[in-house]
Amino acid sequence: MTVLGFVSTWDRAPDWKAALTALEPGLDFRIDPELGDARQIEAALVWKPRPGALATMPNLKVIVSLGAGVDSLRREEMPADVPVVRMIDPQLTRGMVEYVLYAVLRQHRYFPFFEDKQRASAWDQGGPVPDTARTTVGVMGIGVIGGAIARALREVGFAVRGWSRTPHAVEGIEGFHGADGLAPFLAECRHAVCVLPLTPATRGLIDARFLSLLPKGAHLINIGRGGHADEAAILAALDSGRLGHATLDVFHQEPLPAEHRFWRHPGVTLTPHVASLTLARTGAPHVIAAVRAVREGRRPDGLVDWARGY
Amino acid sequence: MTVLGFVSTWDRAPDWKAALTALEPGLDFRIDPELGDARQIEAALVWKPRPGALATMPNLKVIVSLGAGVDSLRREEMPADVPVVRMIDPQLTRGMVEYVLYAVLRQHRYFPFFEDKQRASAWDQGGPVPDTARTTVGVMGIGVIGGAIARALREVGFAVRGWSRTPHAVEGIEGFHGADGLAPFLAECRHAVCVLPLTPATRGLIDARFLSLLPKGAHLINIGRGGHADEAAILAALDSGRLGHATLDVFHQEPLPAEHRFWRHPGVTLTPHVASLTLARTGAPHVIAAVRAVREGRRPDGLVDWARGY
Repeated sequence: MTVLGFVSTWDRAPDWKAALTALEPGLDFRIDPELGDARQIEAALVWKPRPGALATMPNLKVIVSLGAGVDSLRREEMPADVPVVRMIDPQLTRGMVEYVLYAVLRQHRYFPFFEDKQRASAWDQGGPVPDTARTTVGVMGIGVIGGAIARALREVGFAVRGWSRTPHAVEGIEGFHGADGLAPFLAECRHAVCVLPLTPATRGLIDARFLSLLPKGAHLINIGRGGHADEAAILAALDSGRLGHATLDVFHQEPLPAEHRFWRHPGVTLTPHVASLTLARTGAPHVIAAVRAVREGRRPDGLVDWARGY
Repeated sequence: MTVLGFVSTWDRAPDWKAALTALEPGLDFRIDPELGDARQIEAALVWKPRPGALATMPNLKVIVSLGAGVDSLRREEMPADVPVVRMIDPQLTRGMVEYVLYAVLRQHRYFPFFEDKQRASAWDQGGPVPDTARTTVGVMGIGVIGGAIARALREVGFAVRGWSRTPHAVEGIEGFHGADGLAPFLAECRHAVCVLPLTPATRGLIDARFLSLLPKGAHLINIGRGGHADEAAILAALDSGRLGHATLDVFHQEPLPAEHRFWRHPGVTLTPHVASLTLARTGAPHVIAAVRAVREGRRPDGLVDWARGY
């Protein structure tokens, strides 16, 4: 029988309890701070955990993050030698794919233009149809989620390229990697999508130089982390027309303060960190699989390598 | 050498001339009404042709429509025994797929809600994430275009079902057909997409009864023809809350008159018949292939059967 501690200041514990016990009826699901005898807890399911909570569980075998990123977990709070596993959830991936397809298509097909025309009761078909096969979308971060985004965009018909820290081959996707690959990658991106993990190597990547390497009028989509972007540089690039539009789901400070210029900038589409979330129903199988893998001495999917940061 | 007459009151002749002569350098491209000796014309490329124009071409071997529908061609104006071919164009199909993906995702992921919140500088993550795999999208019309739409929605992760006049099997898509299949098909459609050809059998299909068969609050997308829908019934269903939203690209009267209630109804997203258009570059190979097929006595792709109406 698994004893699992749920340590989150965000996610809905009842949903996770229901989804996990549906898969493993004997599971003992305990919700922080009511953890009972914490020495019994074998697995922890966490998101922005209460400081010190994990330290009370001396027999922990595995920690599973409720998010695809582990930047919400302070490494120094993770008990040494306890493997940490990132969430891998088909709905989490799907949600990101949906968000990016929507954001790219909204700009690609001029939907804001047609909304303006509707408000004016004006029938105006606008300019020529854009040629999808000749429109390049670049995806930064080609892991489970970025790979799925790249494939979905290619299926729709876009020319897709990917950029990652180390070489990743995805069929039909032109690959670029490393610092040297960034400028040639960005040079053709009509739409540039950031879905990178936040690590020391990627923090602040989207800065004034980065934006100057994009084609004039390009569209930036950030669904990685706020820490990837220099927000002042984005505003300056929008104001100068270098950047055509920014679709932003993540920010340095969340909730984004009401006085931030992003809220009212006509070149910004802003969503409150909702590009994707894990659903208990679809994420639960990964949690159970991770616990079983660790118990049986196998390497769990999504095992975090703290040296690379994800 | 092919002699081709271009007879359209809408499309841009220079683009078609460039695209077709790039594929067949010797092609003699003539633009109505300057057709020279019209007896030489072997193929006509048409969209809402000038009345009487086709009758001046006694040696026509094939008529190719610039649109995927042929309802813009009056059958009585088509010379007897001349085959008519519908446009099949990867970009035309892609454009329809893009439009539907966008329209479905916009409602599915509550983007209008987040736009309202952005206007109010309010960070509000709204309700729970919708479960894509448990959201059903129904596609009415499962031919080249509808089949591509259904497959794309399934790739994103939706539960997809199709309805057509006669049985059509598409892998992974639950199929319904005929008058008897309509009610069970509609009963589960969170989003219902009409991409049917306009024929006597489909005219007026989207009426008060049809709308009453959808789940309460469903989303209707019409990218077929305005003639498929009873516009008063759509407005009544939106006003009563039976229909949650309507995304409409086609109308009985186009341009839609400025006084029409659709323009200002909060439940309507309206675009001016731009869901998809053929591009000369991507449509030209189909035109050349149709001319060659007819010349060589083969059946061209997209041959219109006037009895069924498409």
